[in-house]
Amino acid sequence: MALERGAQPFARSEYEARWTALKATMSQRGLQTVLTTDGSSMTYLSGYIGSSGYLPQMVILDAAWTEPKLVLRKQDVPLGIYTTQISRDNIIGYPETLVGNPERNGHDFVLDMLEDTGAHTGLLGLEEGVLSRAVYRKYESRLGAGTLADISGLILSQRLVKSDAEIALMRDAARIADAGVLAAISATRPGRRECEIGGDVIHALASGLPDIDTITIKVPNISSGPRIGTAHFNWYLGTVENGMQLNFEIVGLCHHYSASIMRTISLGPPSEKLRRLHDGVHEGLEAGLSTVRPGVTCADVANAYHRALNRHGFSKDSRCGYSIGMGLEPSASLQPTDMTVLEPNMTFHMMLGTWVEEDFGVTLSESFRVTETGAEVFGKSERKLFVV
Amino acid sequence: MALERGAQPFARSEYEARWTALKATMSQRGLQTVLTTDGSSMTYLSGYIGSSGYLPQMVILDAAWTEPKLVLRKQDVPLGIYTTQISRDNIIGYPETLVGNPERNGHDFVLDMLEDTGAHTGLLGLEEGVLSRAVYRKYESRLGAGTLADISGLILSQRLVKSDAEIALMRDAARIADAGVLAAISATRPGRRECEIGGDVIHALASGLPDIDTITIKVPNISSGPRIGTAHFNWYLGTVENGMQLNFEIVGLCHHYSASIMRTISLGPPSEKLRRLHDGVHEGLEAGLSTVRPGVTCADVANAYHRALNRHGFSKDSRCGYSIGMGLEPSASLQPTDMTVLEPNMTFHMMLGTWVEEDFGVTLSESFRVTETGAEVFGKSERKLFVV
Repeated sequence: MALERGAQPFARSEYEARWTALKATMSQRGLQTVLTTDGSSMTYLSGYIGSSGYLPQMVILDAAWTEPKLVLRKQDVPLGIYTTQISRDNIIGYPETLVGNPERNGHDFVLDMLEDTGAHTGLLGLEEGVLSRAVYRKYESRLGAGTLADISGLILSQRLVKSDAEIALMRDAARIADAGVLAAISATRPGRRECEIGGDVIHALASGLPDIDTITIKVPNISSGPRIGTAHFNWYLGTVENGMQLNFEIVGLCHHYSASIMRTISLGPPSEKLRRLHDGVHEGLEAGLSTVRPGVTCADVANAYHRALNRHGFSKDSRCGYSIGMGLEPSASLQPTDMTVLEPNMTFHMMLGTWVEEDFGVTLSESFRVTETGAEVFGKSERKLFVV
Repeated sequence: MALERGAQPFARSEYEARWTALKATMSQRGLQTVLTTDGSSMTYLSGYIGSSGYLPQMVILDAAWTEPKLVLRKQDVPLGIYTTQISRDNIIGYPETLVGNPERNGHDFVLDMLEDTGAHTGLLGLEEGVLSRAVYRKYESRLGAGTLADISGLILSQRLVKSDAEIALMRDAARIADAGVLAAISATRPGRRECEIGGDVIHALASGLPDIDTITIKVPNISSGPRIGTAHFNWYLGTVENGMQLNFEIVGLCHHYSASIMRTISLGPPSEKLRRLHDGVHEGLEAGLSTVRPGVTCADVANAYHRALNRHGFSKDSRCGYSIGMGLEPSASLQPTDMTVLEPNMTFHMMLGTWVEEDFGVTLSESFRVTETGAEVFGKSERKLFVV
């Protein structure tokens, strides 16, 4: 039987607006066609959410087409039909014989298709920052270097300012993240293993709220004990004990749109040193957030943070945050060198993981959007050092 | 204070054996130096588990060095110290000012370092299938194309046959996966939302066993109802009901080593059609597993599956599995065209997601290693169509 389209987060009009905006940029840049293999840009342009990104899969938009083509391995076509607004005719499955095939893969299939559709005759935009050298060479050797243009960052730039529909999902994502924070607070007890605490938090992140079904999660980051100065891993071996500190980075997801929140939890009374650093980071967060409004730069927000933190005798040498949407979006950073001017509905994670020594740091953060007059912080979790 | 190395899954001798084996291949290929940015190859060569892979990070091994260098953003150096066997001197942090910097990034830093260490004077092996075109050009323009060699797949090939220490972790991973299957069976009840079932399964995958702490999870894939013919997503909106079928793909992880298992659960008595397809797939799985022994090919195993399934009047046009270790390893596939000869301690996921119609399919699978005489299936879950 034929599968029908399932429930989806956006109406087709949301995607039509994205295609129209992209075509306007293509026209300015003299591009006939653009092709992206970046997972979140594919989701942005089609709604597709499949996880076969280690294999060739892509969204292609030509100036002459009314909608993009979504190219997937054949096995993934039903998911394309179910989860996207792309017409069945424009969801193209390449044969499964091209999977695990050292000679030919999905990109060879796409190159055949581009020739068939005439989409190769003008300038084709590819993301040189995403496509591997090996894949890029397939396009270069078949189409000629002169027909290719680098569009790295082009779709990301378009994603920098969110629609109201995207903002609504990020607010829901923040409610999921807040549920994760509550789970972290009740899970953190002496004698529990980090993996058990991680399990409780992801259970909350997955299980949804009465009015929100999740469709996936982001695994949280938890550091503790001697490794409290480390970042960017989920959790580790061992048991937490009284006197320890745990740093959490929790991401709520709603239809792949994200809101991140970081909090530190102290098991028992915090040390004076921890209290002092947290006070500095907290004041910096307030200073940064109160700087946010249209017309100021990312640098202004970061500088407000650094000034406040420095007044407390600490410093942070890494950026204070980054654009978010479907997770971290490498388009704009809250850092002193980033002159991106804030506009309404830009969204950021003001990420104040402040690791000041190899074995010492705290985490505190908020996700927010730029409003007409300031910042709307998405999360509602108490902004403090939690003590359990 | 200085952070000390934490508990780790392998002794240093395990890594020394890996470095020695890689150097032997480098010598055969005339390579002075190799550099990998592939996340699991980095873990394989160093133990590093951080998740900043969207930024430059890499392991570099030179024929003249006793151990590799691990290059990370500065913020991640403490995690490198804590979770790897690499000496502190060989964990190199590049400045945080290279993060979110459009002019210079960590690769420019590494190119400076290669010049300083003399590692650029001979042939440098890079993975053209992993490195983006933009990054590759940095190396090419600075070092000259003649000094670069493509080593795509080289480290993957070395990872194809596992050590006994790796196998031990995969057995533990399978115990975690079995706990996930039990959680799936008890979570699947009429009226529950898919996200709640997903939450229960990941809670089990995260929380560990009395003798095993996890350090992360892989989010499972669950399909149900009208989308039972779709694959490669975690779960979706809505509630499961009596008469529905759920297909699960569950991955257990132990220190990033994985064992996958797929099972189908029927809510209420299965349809005759489902029973028939499951019987065919089950017989195919048994036929494939009983074919496994050193000296036969991946193709032989796949053909045994296809023959059995075809006898039941069904067919599967996708591969029957792939090498696993730290997740899917794109080195060998169980498919009729793959002439890889099986050796003891090769490990595979015999992945029999058999989606025969847009809206119909079942999942059944086992992860196994090749033994001296046959196959050791890692998981202990009952091999049947579950009815709840």
